[in-house]
Amino acid sequence: MPTYSEMSREELQQEKSELEARFEEVKAKGLKLDMSRGKPSAAQLDLSMEMMDVLNSSSNLKCEEGIDCRNYGVLDGIREAKQLLADMMEVSAENVIIYGNSSLNVMFDTVARSMTHGVMGSTPWAKLDKVKFLCPVPGYDRHFAITEYFGIEMINVPMTPAGPDMDMVERLVREDESIKGIWCVPKYSNPQGITYSDETVRRFAQLQPAAKDFRIYWDNAYGIHHLYEDKQDYLPEILLECKKAGNPDMVYKFCSTSKVSFPGSGIAAIAASKDNLINIRKQMTIQTIGHDKLNQLRHVRFYKDIHGMVEHMKKHADILRPKFETVLDVLERELGGLGIGSWIRPRGGYFISFDALPGCAKAIVAKAKEAGVVMTNAGATFPYGKDPDDSNIRIAPSFPTPEELAMAAEIFVLSVKLVSIDKILETK
Amino acid sequence: MPTYSEMSREELQQEKSELEARFEEVKAKGLKLDMSRGKPSAAQLDLSMEMMDVLNSSSNLKCEEGIDCRNYGVLDGIREAKQLLADMMEVSAENVIIYGNSSLNVMFDTVARSMTHGVMGSTPWAKLDKVKFLCPVPGYDRHFAITEYFGIEMINVPMTPAGPDMDMVERLVREDESIKGIWCVPKYSNPQGITYSDETVRRFAQLQPAAKDFRIYWDNAYGIHHLYEDKQDYLPEILLECKKAGNPDMVYKFCSTSKVSFPGSGIAAIAASKDNLINIRKQMTIQTIGHDKLNQLRHVRFYKDIHGMVEHMKKHADILRPKFETVLDVLERELGGLGIGSWIRPRGGYFISFDALPGCAKAIVAKAKEAGVVMTNAGATFPYGKDPDDSNIRIAPSFPTPEELAMAAEIFVLSVKLVSIDKILETK
Repeated sequence: MPTYSEMSREELQQEKSELEARFEEVKAKGLKLDMSRGKPSAAQLDLSMEMMDVLNSSSNLKCEEGIDCRNYGVLDGIREAKQLLADMMEVSAENVIIYGNSSLNVMFDTVARSMTHGVMGSTPWAKLDKVKFLCPVPGYDRHFAITEYFGIEMINVPMTPAGPDMDMVERLVREDESIKGIWCVPKYSNPQGITYSDETVRRFAQLQPAAKDFRIYWDNAYGIHHLYEDKQDYLPEILLECKKAGNPDMVYKFCSTSKVSFPGSGIAAIAASKDNLINIRKQMTIQTIGHDKLNQLRHVRFYKDIHGMVEHMKKHADILRPKFETVLDVLERELGGLGIGSWIRPRGGYFISFDALPGCAKAIVAKAKEAGVVMTNAGATFPYGKDPDDSNIRIAPSFPTPEELAMAAEIFVLSVKLVSIDKILETK
Repeated sequence: MPTYSEMSREELQQEKSELEARFEEVKAKGLKLDMSRGKPSAAQLDLSMEMMDVLNSSSNLKCEEGIDCRNYGVLDGIREAKQLLADMMEVSAENVIIYGNSSLNVMFDTVARSMTHGVMGSTPWAKLDKVKFLCPVPGYDRHFAITEYFGIEMINVPMTPAGPDMDMVERLVREDESIKGIWCVPKYSNPQGITYSDETVRRFAQLQPAAKDFRIYWDNAYGIHHLYEDKQDYLPEILLECKKAGNPDMVYKFCSTSKVSFPGSGIAAIAASKDNLINIRKQMTIQTIGHDKLNQLRHVRFYKDIHGMVEHMKKHADILRPKFETVLDVLERELGGLGIGSWIRPRGGYFISFDALPGCAKAIVAKAKEAGVVMTNAGATFPYGKDPDDSNIRIAPSFPTPEELAMAAEIFVLSVKLVSIDKILETK
C-alpha cells in the first residue's frame, strides 16, 4: 500500500469518502470515551482495596520508632515510610522526606520556595530579572503550568529516543545563569514513554551549570510502572550519578504512590542530598506540623516492603498491558506505512505519544471529539500549550475499559486519516 | 496573707528557703513532664478510633456526587466534607475549600501566594518594599513564624479581655498601606483562652484598611472546642459580619479537625468570599490535583454531620475539663493573692496563659525545667520570640495525665514563687 502522500488526489478523495462514511457510523453511536487523563481504571484501584483494612480500630498505630501516628509530630515522615519510598526511588532513606498526597504539590512547593527564599542560600528568584527553565518536549503539562504560574520563561528542548537533546542542555545551562532548572520525566516519560539512556543520565549528572542554584527536577513518576516483566527499561540512579560527578546537590527527585495505591490518597516524597534536605526542612518546619502519618503507616503495612510493592505493580501491569497493546495494535494496523504519523511502543508508564503530520494535531483532537472521544488537548504537551508543529497528541489508555478503548482507538485513527488527507490534499 | 511585695526581706527569705527545700524534693523525683504543646492526650485520640473502621475494603467509596474517591479529581473537596466543615465554621458550603491535613499549611500557602502573586490582583508582596502584619499578643508562635519566614514585619497589638486593642488596630490599618494582615485566634485564643467580644468582631468587620489586599487571618482553631456544656463562649460569624459591613472579601477563615479527630491526619479548610475562593482556586489548580478524598470521606462517614461532631467534642471536653481545672485550682490555691502572677480561666481551647511579674518568665520556665517540667519557651507567644516584658508563659494542660499534671502544676507554682521572690528581693 502506498503512503497517503504517494496517492493521487483521486485516490485520496476515494479513501476520504469511505472513511467519512465509517466516521459517521461510529459518530452515530453517540459514544462518550475519555483518553485524556493518565488515570488508573477502577480495576486498578480495586487492587489496593485491602489497604482500607490494614488499619482498624484495634490496630497498634505506633510506628517503628514508637511514635503514636495519631498525634502531632514527625515532620519529614515515619522511618518505615522513608525506607519504603527510598527503596522505590533507589536511594538511601536518609535522602528522603515524605510529603502529603501529591508529588505535584511537592514540586510546586519546591519552585515556590525557590521564588521566595532561593536555593541553599541563593538569591530568591522573585528578586531576579529573569528566571528560565528548560523543558524537554513533548512533556508533562502540569510541570509547565507550575513554571508558567511563577512567570518562569520556558525553553523547549527536543526529546530524542535517548532523552532530551543533551548537546543543547549542556550548552544552555553552561552559558545562561538565568536557567535554574529542567523538568524531567526520565523513565517511561510523559508522554512518549522514553527512558533516558545511561549516557543521557551521566551527562545530566555532569552538567556544569552557570547557576549554582540550578537543579534537575527529576520527576521519576513511573519508576516502577513497567508494562512487561521481561522487557523493562533501566535507569541509572541520578542522585548517585550526581554525587559521583561531584554535583551532589544538583538534583531533586520526586515520586509518589499515586499510581501505585490510590491517586490523591497516596504518599509523596522528595529525594535529594543532605544539604538540600536541610534547606527544605527549614521551610517545612514553618509550613506544617507534619504530613498524614496514619496514611504513611497504612501504605507501609499494606505493601510491607519494596518487594510487596513490586509484586503489586505486576498486577497493575496485567491490567494496563492489554490496553496499551490494543491501542498500539490499532495504530500499527490502521496507520502503519501510511506516512501520516509516528509513535513509540513504550515499555511502561501511562501514555502513548502520537506525532501527526505537522499542522494536524488540533484538528485530529477536534475530529475525535466530534465522535465522542476526549483526548488531551493538542499542544498540552508543550510549554504555554503551544506545539510549534501542531503535531503531538498524548494518548492515555489507562482509564477506559478494553472494549471502550478499542472503539476509541478506531475513532482516533479515523480522525488521523481524515485530517491527514485534508492536509495532504491542500498541497496536491 | 500578704502579697509577696508586702512581705519583708526576712519573710521572703524564710519563704524562699522553705520553697527551695520543697523544690529539691520534687526535683529529686527525676520527673519528665511536658506542658509545652497543645497536643491531645492518648485518651482523646482513642475517642476517634472507630474512624479507622468506617472505610474498609467492602465500603462504597463514592461520595454523594457519585465520584470515586479513590481516584484523581475534585480539586476543592467533596460536597459532604464541605458541608461538614462549613457547619463547623458556621458558613455556607459554597464559601468553603477543603485542604489536606493541616490548617497551618493552608495559612502558609495563603501568605506564600500573596508574596508571589498578590491578593485578587494586587501587587505581589515580594515586589513591595515593606509588608507588615499586626500580631495580637500574646499569640500563636506558628503564626508569627510564617510571617517572619517571609520577612514580613510584625507589629505587636496588645490583647484585652475583649480581644485585640481595636483602637490601635483601626488606626494602624487605616493609616498604613503596608499592613496586609492580622493574625487572629478569635475564640478561646491561643494562649489566653479569650473570645473576642461581639463589638470586637463587628469592629473587625468594619475596618477601613488603606491596603485593598489587607485580610484578617481568622484562625478559628477552637471554634467548637468548649470545656463546658453550660458555659460556652459565643463568637459572631466573621464572614457574615464582613459582608454586612460591605467588606465581604476582607477575611480568610481557617479551621481543621486536628483537635477533633487525629492531629496530622485530619482535614483542614478555608472559608472566604466567592471572589477570594476564585483567586485561591487559580493557585490550587496549579499546585495539586486535589487533596485526600478518602480521608474526607472517612471524616464525614464517622461524624455523619455537625451534630455528631458536637457530640464528639463533649467527650473531648470531659477529658480536658478536669485537666484545666487541676491546673487552675493549683494556680488559685498556691498563687492566689500573692500578687506574683495573673491568669484567665478559659471556657475552651487548649491553653492557660500565665502572666508572671515582668522579667520573670524565662527564669520560671528554666526553673521548672530543672525539676523536669517542659513548658513552651518563654517569649514564644510573641513575634520574634521576644516578650518585651518577659512575662507571659503558655501552659498546655492537654497531653499529660491528670496525675502528671497535678505534679507539673505544683512544680510550676514552686518555680513561679522562687523566681518571683528573687525578683522582689532585687528591689527591696
